[in-house]
Amino acid sequence: MTDPNAPSSIAPGDPRLARLSLNQKTTNRWGVAEAVDGCVRAGIPAIGIWREPLHDIGVERAVKLVRDAGLRVSSLCRGGFLTAIDPAARRRALDDNRRAIDEAAALGAPCLVLVVGGLPEGSRDLAGARARVADAVAELAPYAAASGVRLALEPLHPMYCADRAVLSTLAQALDLAEAFPVEQVGVVVDTFHVWWDPAVWEQIRRAGSRIASFQVCDFNLPIPADALLARGMMGDGVIEFRPFREAVDAAGYTGDIEVEIFNADVWAQDPDQVLATMKQRYVDLVL
Amino acid sequence: MTDPNAPSSIAPGDPRLARLSLNQKTTNRWGVAEAVDGCVRAGIPAIGIWREPLHDIGVERAVKLVRDAGLRVSSLCRGGFLTAIDPAARRRALDDNRRAIDEAAALGAPCLVLVVGGLPEGSRDLAGARARVADAVAELAPYAAASGVRLALEPLHPMYCADRAVLSTLAQALDLAEAFPVEQVGVVVDTFHVWWDPAVWEQIRRAGSRIASFQVCDFNLPIPADALLARGMMGDGVIEFRPFREAVDAAGYTGDIEVEIFNADVWAQDPDQVLATMKQRYVDLVL
Repeated sequence: MTDPNAPSSIAPGDPRLARLSLNQKTTNRWGVAEAVDGCVRAGIPAIGIWREPLHDIGVERAVKLVRDAGLRVSSLCRGGFLTAIDPAARRRALDDNRRAIDEAAALGAPCLVLVVGGLPEGSRDLAGARARVADAVAELAPYAAASGVRLALEPLHPMYCADRAVLSTLAQALDLAEAFPVEQVGVVVDTFHVWWDPAVWEQIRRAGSRIASFQVCDFNLPIPADALLARGMMGDGVIEFRPFREAVDAAGYTGDIEVEIFNADVWAQDPDQVLATMKQRYVDLVL
Repeated sequence: MTDPNAPSSIAPGDPRLARLSLNQKTTNRWGVAEAVDGCVRAGIPAIGIWREPLHDIGVERAVKLVRDAGLRVSSLCRGGFLTAIDPAARRRALDDNRRAIDEAAALGAPCLVLVVGGLPEGSRDLAGARARVADAVAELAPYAAASGVRLALEPLHPMYCADRAVLSTLAQALDLAEAFPVEQVGVVVDTFHVWWDPAVWEQIRRAGSRIASFQVCDFNLPIPADALLARGMMGDGVIEFRPFREAVDAAGYTGDIEVEIFNADVWAQDPDQVLATMKQRYVDLVL
């Protein structure tokens, strides 16, 4: 395993970094400006931006920073949370998603990642929540298409089904996406969320050009007290990455490969060091 | 919601309890003798027995206790852990599973529940682990059949894929089970493990007479620090139970319905009170 404290030998401009993208969540303490600078220093050519830090500096300033740095924006994270029953809450969610689509368009992000939402407080109607997601996607897709932004449905690990995303498998995401033109609605393949799925290879083949985003991070054990933070640096958990990268490539995906890590230990490290480790692990384990 | 402190109004002999089984894990502090007595006091006609407490009192004594009390044994929990790579470890696991089959036969349990095991320490070869499970089941199935015991493959929630069971969906369990005669290898439908699965209704229909055991408990949030203990009393979590009971009934399952709860709070309660609550919740939410 790579020593996380060793200086990275992978210099900016190395062609092996051509598809690597820093999902901003991986360097959680950095704002957009710092993350853009960090990518430039590390020679990482693309960035996945989160809305909260985006709002902190404003869309216009972020657009300028990213452009001036010559970075691609690989995705905007995230829209979604579309399962509300209350009509006013539902309207607010749809409005917020339209704003997110506008932001993604301004940034030149090819897709807006959608985390579709869990069961509303007190509800046990999973089928109903899933139906409301489908209705909301139908409402948002034409708006997104008109803005040149693709909606990227992200199936989340089933341990988040109740409280975060009722979309739980790639098959289910594709069933939903296929009701729309391929350029309007795609799917996210995130190794953390799908690595366990016995049907995943078949579903990645099926996904083909529906793959709007490919995200990598490891599945760490034990699952921490805050289950959201189980996402680990590649090599620290149980996932074998290369077969996933090869499968999405074989399915025709040619886009960026985002490293998105939610992990208290990673967040506590020097972000530049995190980028150095991330480059090395990416080259060693993903490529 | 039922007041868990209210005395149960459901008396022994009530016909609504006819299929109810106490999985011993729900009253974790009770040994076999205490659990048998508790079932008799509560009028619960069946019990799912665990091997560790069984070994504590010995198989012969347990058989006599259960028979004298007039209880059915609905299952023996559990065999499995069949993913070892090391040949000696694999042989030990198979030997231990044969002993478990003998114990199930002695108890008159219709099935031995198999939790198939996770990735071996340091391995990331999920496909290999799954293949070894299939090989081991093929080795055990004839032995189980000769003993009149059915192997019951239990798909576990995908959050346990790495460390507990590489069998993650009902579809995957059925793909494996269908390689064997229906009376040799069946599957477990456990609401906690499958509630999130978009394919579960179709797979329960497909399972039909392969359903060897039906277990109920709730999925509680947040997932506790020890993720194994997220199993809750029916009504305390996010699962709607009746559709599952109706689906397994419609698939032709006529066996016992086991309540199996791993939960520190439930384990801290007076076990007789747990049984009273369990009867009430079962009648209110499962039937």
